Amino acid sequence: MSFSLCTSWVWMLLFLGCTLGQSKQTRSAGSDVRNCTTVPPYLPSTVTNTAERLQALRQHMRVYNVSAYIVPATDAHMSEYIAEQDARLAWMTGFTGSAGTGVVTLDKATLWTDSRYWIQAERQMDCSWELQKTVWIHSIGEWILQEVPAGKNIGLDPFLFSIDNWESYCQALQNSGRNLIPIETNLVDLVWDAQKPPPPTHSIYALSDEFTGNTWQNKVSDIRTQMEKHSKSPTAVLLSGLEETAWLFNLRGDDIPYNPVFYSYALLTKSNISLFLNQSRLTQDALQSLTAGCPGPLCVHLEDYNQVKAHLENYVQGDIQVWIGTEYTTYGLFRVIPEEKRLQESYSPVMTTKAVKNTKEQGLLKAAHVRDAVAVIQYLHWLEKNVPLGSVNEFSGAHYVNQLRQKMDHWRGPSFETISASGLNAALAHYSPSNVSSRKLSVDEMYLTDSGGQYLDGTTDITRTVHWGAPTPFQKEAYTRVLMGNIELSRLVFPSGTSGRMIEAFARRALWEVGLNYGHGTGHGIGNFLSVHEWPVGFQSNNVPLTTGMFTSIEPGYYQDGEFGIRIEDVALVVETQTEHKVGDKPFLTFEVVSLVPYDRNLIDVRLLSAEQIQYLNSYYETIRHRVGPELQRRQLQEEYEWMRSNTEPFSQGVLVAASLGLLAVTTLMSEFLSNLQA
Amino acid sequence: MSFSLCTSWVWMLLFLGCTLGQSKQTRSAGSDVRNCTTVPPYLPSTVTNTAERLQALRQHMRVYNVSAYIVPATDAHMSEYIAEQDARLAWMTGFTGSAGTGVVTLDKATLWTDSRYWIQAERQMDCSWELQKTVWIHSIGEWILQEVPAGKNIGLDPFLFSIDNWESYCQALQNSGRNLIPIETNLVDLVWDAQKPPPPTHSIYALSDEFTGNTWQNKVSDIRTQMEKHSKSPTAVLLSGLEETAWLFNLRGDDIPYNPVFYSYALLTKSNISLFLNQSRLTQDALQSLTAGCPGPLCVHLEDYNQVKAHLENYVQGDIQVWIGTEYTTYGLFRVIPEEKRLQESYSPVMTTKAVKNTKEQGLLKAAHVRDAVAVIQYLHWLEKNVPLGSVNEFSGAHYVNQLRQKMDHWRGPSFETISASGLNAALAHYSPSNVSSRKLSVDEMYLTDSGGQYLDGTTDITRTVHWGAPTPFQKEAYTRVLMGNIELSRLVFPSGTSGRMIEAFARRALWEVGLNYGHGTGHGIGNFLSVHEWPVGFQSNNVPLTTGMFTSIEPGYYQDGEFGIRIEDVALVVETQTEHKVGDKPFLTFEVVSLVPYDRNLIDVRLLSAEQIQYLNSYYETIRHRVGPELQRRQLQEEYEWMRSNTEPFSQGVLVAASLGLLAVTTLMSEFLSNLQA
Repeated sequence: MSFSLCTSWVWMLLFLGCTLGQSKQTRSAGSDVRNCTTVPPYLPSTVTNTAERLQALRQHMRVYNVSAYIVPATDAHMSEYIAEQDARLAWMTGFTGSAGTGVVTLDKATLWTDSRYWIQAERQMDCSWELQKTVWIHSIGEWILQEVPAGKNIGLDPFLFSIDNWESYCQALQNSGRNLIPIETNLVDLVWDAQKPPPPTHSIYALSDEFTGNTWQNKVSDIRTQMEKHSKSPTAVLLSGLEETAWLFNLRGDDIPYNPVFYSYALLTKSNISLFLNQSRLTQDALQSLTAGCPGPLCVHLEDYNQVKAHLENYVQGDIQVWIGTEYTTYGLFRVIPEEKRLQESYSPVMTTKAVKNTKEQGLLKAAHVRDAVAVIQYLHWLEKNVPLGSVNEFSGAHYVNQLRQKMDHWRGPSFETISASGLNAALAHYSPSNVSSRKLSVDEMYLTDSGGQYLDGTTDITRTVHWGAPTPFQKEAYTRVLMGNIELSRLVFPSGTSGRMIEAFARRALWEVGLNYGHGTGHGIGNFLSVHEWPVGFQSNNVPLTTGMFTSIEPGYYQDGEFGIRIEDVALVVETQTEHKVGDKPFLTFEVVSLVPYDRNLIDVRLLSAEQIQYLNSYYETIRHRVGPELQRRQLQEEYEWMRSNTEPFSQGVLVAASLGLLAVTTLMSEFLSNLQA
Repeated sequence: MSFSLCTSWVWMLLFLGCTLGQSKQTRSAGSDVRNCTTVPPYLPSTVTNTAERLQALRQHMRVYNVSAYIVPATDAHMSEYIAEQDARLAWMTGFTGSAGTGVVTLDKATLWTDSRYWIQAERQMDCSWELQKTVWIHSIGEWILQEVPAGKNIGLDPFLFSIDNWESYCQALQNSGRNLIPIETNLVDLVWDAQKPPPPTHSIYALSDEFTGNTWQNKVSDIRTQMEKHSKSPTAVLLSGLEETAWLFNLRGDDIPYNPVFYSYALLTKSNISLFLNQSRLTQDALQSLTAGCPGPLCVHLEDYNQVKAHLENYVQGDIQVWIGTEYTTYGLFRVIPEEKRLQESYSPVMTTKAVKNTKEQGLLKAAHVRDAVAVIQYLHWLEKNVPLGSVNEFSGAHYVNQLRQKMDHWRGPSFETISASGLNAALAHYSPSNVSSRKLSVDEMYLTDSGGQYLDGTTDITRTVHWGAPTPFQKEAYTRVLMGNIELSRLVFPSGTSGRMIEAFARRALWEVGLNYGHGTGHGIGNFLSVHEWPVGFQSNNVPLTTGMFTSIEPGYYQDGEFGIRIEDVALVVETQTEHKVGDKPFLTFEVVSLVPYDRNLIDVRLLSAEQIQYLNSYYETIRHRVGPELQRRQLQEEYEWMRSNTEPFSQGVLVAASLGLLAVTTLMSEFLSNLQA
C-alpha cells in the first residue's frame, strides 16, 4: 500500500501511455554526452547556462532558511502539459522534457528524470546540474538525506505538489530530522521575475450544445446528488484539475498546449457555485451561459483565479465538509481545510463522473475517430507513395498528417506533439522530430507515428508502425507479438468492475513468451475535446475499475535500442457483451475499438496468430470497411478507399489453418488421413 | 491507494485461497434460516444463547464509556487460524466461522462475514445478532455511524487490530465526531473470565537441521545485514507474526490448530535478541540452541510473553528506530513507539526473507509434495474403487485421506481442515463435512477434495475435483475451463518482479470468456512446515512481486450454487526460464508445479484446449510419472502405480489436432488437400 501511496504521481508520469519511455536497461549509465571533468568543461551547444539563476535562487533559499529547494515540472493543477509561465523546472535547468524534478541545495543541483529524457537532459543542462536516472520520490529523498544535514529545512511551493506527492516526500524524509517546509512564495519565480512569460489572455468560450454530453446545469445537479448520497455528507466539492472545471461547465480555453483548458478552480456547494478564473477572458456567450440562472442554486459566481485560497479559508470557518480528490488537489489548498473537515478520495466526483461517457459523448468520440481515421489512412497511403521517392522525413511527415487532420470538420489542433520516428529514433518511445534534426523515411526502416487530433466532438490518439520494404524476421516477429498483445486485450471478455491493472498483462503476454517486454503503460483514458491522457481511466494500479462507457487507449509496444521501435495504439470503448453463460446480474464487458485504421500487413507474421486472433482481426477490418469506407467515398478519396480495401482484406482460412497448426501437426494429420484412405 | 489501505486485511481474509468463498451473487439476500419475527422466535437447535454474555459485555462497555465495541476474529498476532483462548468472536456470537467482525452497541449486536459463512452464521447465532452480508470496514463504519450518535466512543482492543486495520477504522469514522478508543483490557475477556480456555502448554521444540534452510544464527545475521543496508538505519526489528519467530529461530510449537507455531514476539537489535514466550515450554534442545551463544550478539534473551510491551516501552526511550511490518504488528504495540522512531513497511524483513525459499528449502518443499502426491493418488484410486460401492461419504473420505498422509514420513498433521464436498456441497467453497452431516459420495455427482499435510520438510495443499460417472456437458465445460485457467497461469512466462495481481487474470480468462468466474483469490504462499497460507506471496494487490524461490498455490475454481463446485489447486515454485530472445539482464520467470497428481480425464473436454495447453499437460504428466512413479513403486503400490500411469497417458496428437482446428477447419484443410490430389 505504501508503495502506491508514495509513487502514484510518479507512475502517472512514467506511464502516461503514448509519450512514453523505454525500459531502463536499454540505456547504459555513465555515458554523459557532457564532459564536466575538463577545464573548461565540454558542453553541447544546446545547454543553457544556469549559473546566475542558481546563484540567485540560493540567495533566496538562504533568506527563507532552506538548505534544499524542490522544483517540480507541473503547475498548480497537476497538469501533465503546462503553459510557458509554469515551466519553472525548464527555466531553472535548461531541460525541457515534460517530466522531472529538480532539487537545488546550497552547493549542488540535481535533476531526476526517466529514461526517455536522459540524453536530452545531458544535452540541455550545464555542469551545474547532475542527472539522476530515476524518478522515484524515494530516491530523491535518499539523495536529500545524503546532501542535507539533520536539523535543516527542505523547501517547496505547496501549490505545485499534490497531497499525495507531499505525503510521499514526508514519508521519504520521515523521522530523519529534516523538515519539509511549504513556502507559498515560489522562489524560482522570484528569480525568474520580469523574464517570466505573462499569463495567457486567450478567450474562454462555451462549447455548443451539440458537442456536450449534457448541460452544465445537469452536470452540477448530478454532482450535488452524489454529495447528498455520500455517507460522509460533504457540503462542497473543491475542483482543482483544469479538465474538471472545463468539463463541468462546458467551457474550453487555450491556456495549455494541446489541452483546451483554462486556469481555474471551482467550489461547488449545495446552494452555491464559485468559479475562480480571469473573468475578463470569458466570451459573452460563456458569461451568459454561466450567469443565466442568477440568482439561484444554478448561478455561477465568478471570482478571481487568485481568490480561491482566501475564499476557501473563509468557507472552512463554517460547519462544512469539503470533498477533494487527492491526486489533483495541491497541498497548498489542502492545508487550508482543517483535517476534520476534509473528505479525501483519490479523485473528485467530477473526475470519476467525467470518466464514464454517456451515450451522446460516446457517439461524439466515435464520430471524431471516424474522421481521424480518414486522415490517418490518407497519411499512410501518401507515405506508401512518397517514401520510396525519398521525399519524406520525420518532420515533414508529422507536418503532413497534421495538415490532413486540419481539413477535417471540427478540428481544433493536435492533441499532443506528433511522434514521427524512423528507424532507431522510434526506439526512443517519446521521440518527436524537429525542423533541424529529422531523419529521412526509408523503405529500409520501420516508421512509427503516434499522433492525434483535438476535435470539438472528441480527442483522438493513434499509433501505427509500418515498413515499406523487407523487415527482418525479428522485426516481423516483434511487430506481430505487439499486435497479438493489442488484440488479446481488445478482445478480452471480463467482469464488470475489473481494474485495468488486472488485465493489462494480456497486452504483454505474447512478448513475454519470448523474453520481450515494453517499459511503459498499456493505456490511458481520453476526453471529449479534453486531455489526450484523461485520468482516472487506464491500466495502472491507481486507475479506477473499468465500467461501460469508459474510453481507454490500448497500446503495447516493443523498443529495440539503437534499431527500431514498434507501438500499436488504438482507442477503445468499454462495452457490455453477451456471454454463452450468465451468472449473476452484472454484465460482462469487452472493448469496442473505435480507432479504425488497418495494421501493416507487411509486418504481420500470420503464422504466429491464433485462429481467434485472425477472426478478431478480420472482424475489426470489416468494421473499418463498414464505418470508414463510406466516409472515404463521400470525400471522393478513391485511391485511399482502394488502399483501405486492400489493407483490410480478410486473412484467409487457409492461412488460418496453417497458423493454428504448425507444419508438424499438419504433417501428422495428413499422414493419419492418408493411412485412413489406404485402409 | 486509499482503497488498498482501507481494506488490506479484509482482502487477506477474503482471498486466502483454498478455504475460500463463493461470489456474492450466488446467494440471495433475505433468506434467513432463523425467524426472529415470531414470539418466541424460530431458531435452529444449533444457535448459542448469547443474551447473558451481551448483557455483561454492555455493562463493561458502560463502565468504559463506549457506545460500541468491536470484536474481531483474530488474535494478537494477526493469525489466520486462532487458538481456543482467542476465539472471542465465536464465544460472543456463537458463530464459529474463521472470518468475521462483531460490533456490539448498547442495544444492538451485528456480525459481518463473507458469503461462505452466511448460512452458518444464521444457524449459529440467536436473534440478539443481526447478520451483515459484507466484510468491508467501510460498511462496518457506515453501520456504526448510523447506530452511534456523534460525540460517543467506539472501543476496541488495540492488541487485536493491525496498524492497517486500525487506520481503516479511523478512516471509516474520520471527521464524524465519533471517537475510536483503544482499551487495553479486553472487554470480552472480562465477561468470558473463568470459562475462558487456558493458554497452551505443549512444548516448543527446535527443528532439526535437516529440515531448516539455514541456522537461526545465519538468519539473524542476514536480517541484521538488511538493517545495516537500509537507508533509514533501523536499530531493531520487531516481530509480531507467529510464523516470523518460528521461522527465524527454527522453532515450532502447537499453539494454533494446523499451524506449528507458538505464542511469541521478538525484538532483534544489532547486538541483542529478545524472544518473548513462555520459557518453561521450551524443550531442553530448544533452550540449548537459543542460548549456546550467550553472552554475545547471537545469544537469545528469553523474556516472558507478556513482557513485550514493557520491554518495548523501555527500548524506545533510546535513540532508536524500530522496523515494523504494518500488516502483522498490532496497533497496541505500534502506539508504544513514538512516531519519529518508527520505520513502517507493509512486511518485516523476516516476512519478506522467509517468502523466498533458498535451494535447500525448495528441495524440502518439493520432497514433501512428492510424498503428498502418493497419498492423494492413493486416495483418488481408493475413491474410484469404493465410491461405486456406495461406501464412502464426505466425512469418511476426509478421514481416509488424512490417514493416508499420516503414514508418510515426517507427517505432523493436516495443514488445514480437510474440505471434502460432494455435489451441491462443493458449491460452498469452504465446506468441511462433519460426523453428523455428511453426504454420501456418488458416481452421479462431482466431488471436490481440498486437503494438505504438515510435514517436517514442508506444508502441502492440493485440490482435485472428480466425477466417476457421466458429467453434464456444462460440468465438463466448467471443469475444463478451470483447468485451462490453471494451465494458463502455470505456464505463463513473465518478467522478474511482476506482481501476482498483474497476472492472476490468466487463471480466469477461460471462464470469463463464457461469462463465468469465481469469487475467491487465485493463490497464496505456503511454508516449510509453517502456514498453509503464507504471506506475503500471492496474487492479491497487497502481495509482493514474484521472484525466484517463492512458492504459491494456483487455484482457480467455479461454483454453481446448489449444484456443484470445482477447484483445481496446485502449489508451484517460481523459477527462471530461458526465452527465445533476451533483453536486459533480468531473467524471465515461470512456474514449476510441484503438486504432482493427475487431473480428472473424465471431466476434461479436450476440444476446448489449445495445442499449447495440451503440450503443457502432457509435459506435466510426464513429470508426475518421472517423480511420483518411482515413489509409488518403492512403496509397492502397484495398483496405484497403474492408476497413475493410465491417468497420465499423454493426450494424443490426433486429439490435439482436432482441438486446435475445430471441425470446420479440418474439413477445409481436407478439401484443399483433396483438390490438390486431384489436380
